[in-house]
Amino acid sequence: MHDPLPRVDPGQLESVYAPLADSIRRLVDVSIRTEADPATAAAAKRKIDSAADELSTALLPGPVGVHRSPDGRTFAWGNAVVGVRNPVAPPLVIHHDPGGLVWSEFVLGAAYEGPPGNVHGGVCALVLDHVLGAIAHQPGRPAYTGTLTLRYRRQTPLQRPLRAEARIERTEGVKTFVVGHLADGDGVTVEAEGIFIQPRLG
Amino acid sequence: MHDPLPRVDPGQLESVYAPLADSIRRLVDVSIRTEADPATAAAAKRKIDSAADELSTALLPGPVGVHRSPDGRTFAWGNAVVGVRNPVAPPLVIHHDPGGLVWSEFVLGAAYEGPPGNVHGGVCALVLDHVLGAIAHQPGRPAYTGTLTLRYRRQTPLQRPLRAEARIERTEGVKTFVVGHLADGDGVTVEAEGIFIQPRLG
Repeated sequence: MHDPLPRVDPGQLESVYAPLADSIRRLVDVSIRTEADPATAAAAKRKIDSAADELSTALLPGPVGVHRSPDGRTFAWGNAVVGVRNPVAPPLVIHHDPGGLVWSEFVLGAAYEGPPGNVHGGVCALVLDHVLGAIAHQPGRPAYTGTLTLRYRRQTPLQRPLRAEARIERTEGVKTFVVGHLADGDGVTVEAEGIFIQPRLG
Repeated sequence: MHDPLPRVDPGQLESVYAPLADSIRRLVDVSIRTEADPATAAAAKRKIDSAADELSTALLPGPVGVHRSPDGRTFAWGNAVVGVRNPVAPPLVIHHDPGGLVWSEFVLGAAYEGPPGNVHGGVCALVLDHVLGAIAHQPGRPAYTGTLTLRYRRQTPLQRPLRAEARIERTEGVKTFVVGHLADGDGVTVEAEGIFIQPRLG
């Protein structure tokens, strides 16, 4: 939605802003789990407000969108699943195997809780939507979710290694049929099927 | 997962920690959109790290779970959709109408981006999973997602008033069949159907 920031390569900007997002991810986690007394919480809040004020002195008016570097790389900084500048994103790193499998391995902490001790069912859906969608994407030609169906077999634990994966089942015109799942060390926790739509070029 | 903190009513604790989460929500938003120079970003990061250090001096070892006050109210502080202590949660406020409709109205900012300028399809799923699940819940007897099916009609815009709603279609034993949707000012953007399972009381 926005033009790239002038004169600066996005990769360079990432080295400035990605560590900031990492710090905020840690802050989010400890702010949920803290038992600090009211005075300590108030002192921390003042520092947080001050940091936010400083960062607000130069602000894009809206969401970040996708930036492109001169060599064609894209940076989806604000993306809620993979955005390295978005503290809400875990962020997932998506791998594309030569055989067509797309996968990501990650651990989800307190910020993604639903049932006590477990990942929110909707966060499972968020992750699977992204991983299934990633396989339908082509460079410069994003795919959009048409339908997504999730079957929850059992709870997905927080604070344990998780793996999401997806593969293409078949394609029909602009539609890509994708299947995938989320799993912990004991096997599949959530199964997913998605139909993704690739808008025609031009 | 954790016993209530000793001697303090959860409602009182909420007045300490909820404003902290609000401050972090603002920090998350501006940190994604900031164009601050590297020195300013580094200075803000130091304040954030310092605040996180202070909050870490007294920390629950794991996720927050659900707290109960002496009068039976429950506090799902860490919940990824409605948790008032969780900066990742918008947080949604869920309304239960006497006629059986469950609904929530909210605006999603830069932290929930997928396609440029629009809500991530997986965030739509996250919200709908929660709102559909909320109708299947009964006090002290939570319902778990069995299956969830989402049909994406068009993009859902960021920074615009949105409304999610759900109603029960029918129940069969432990299964509750729920339908709902997400909408902006121009109508429905995503339709949802869910089957929620209520574990039998033990």
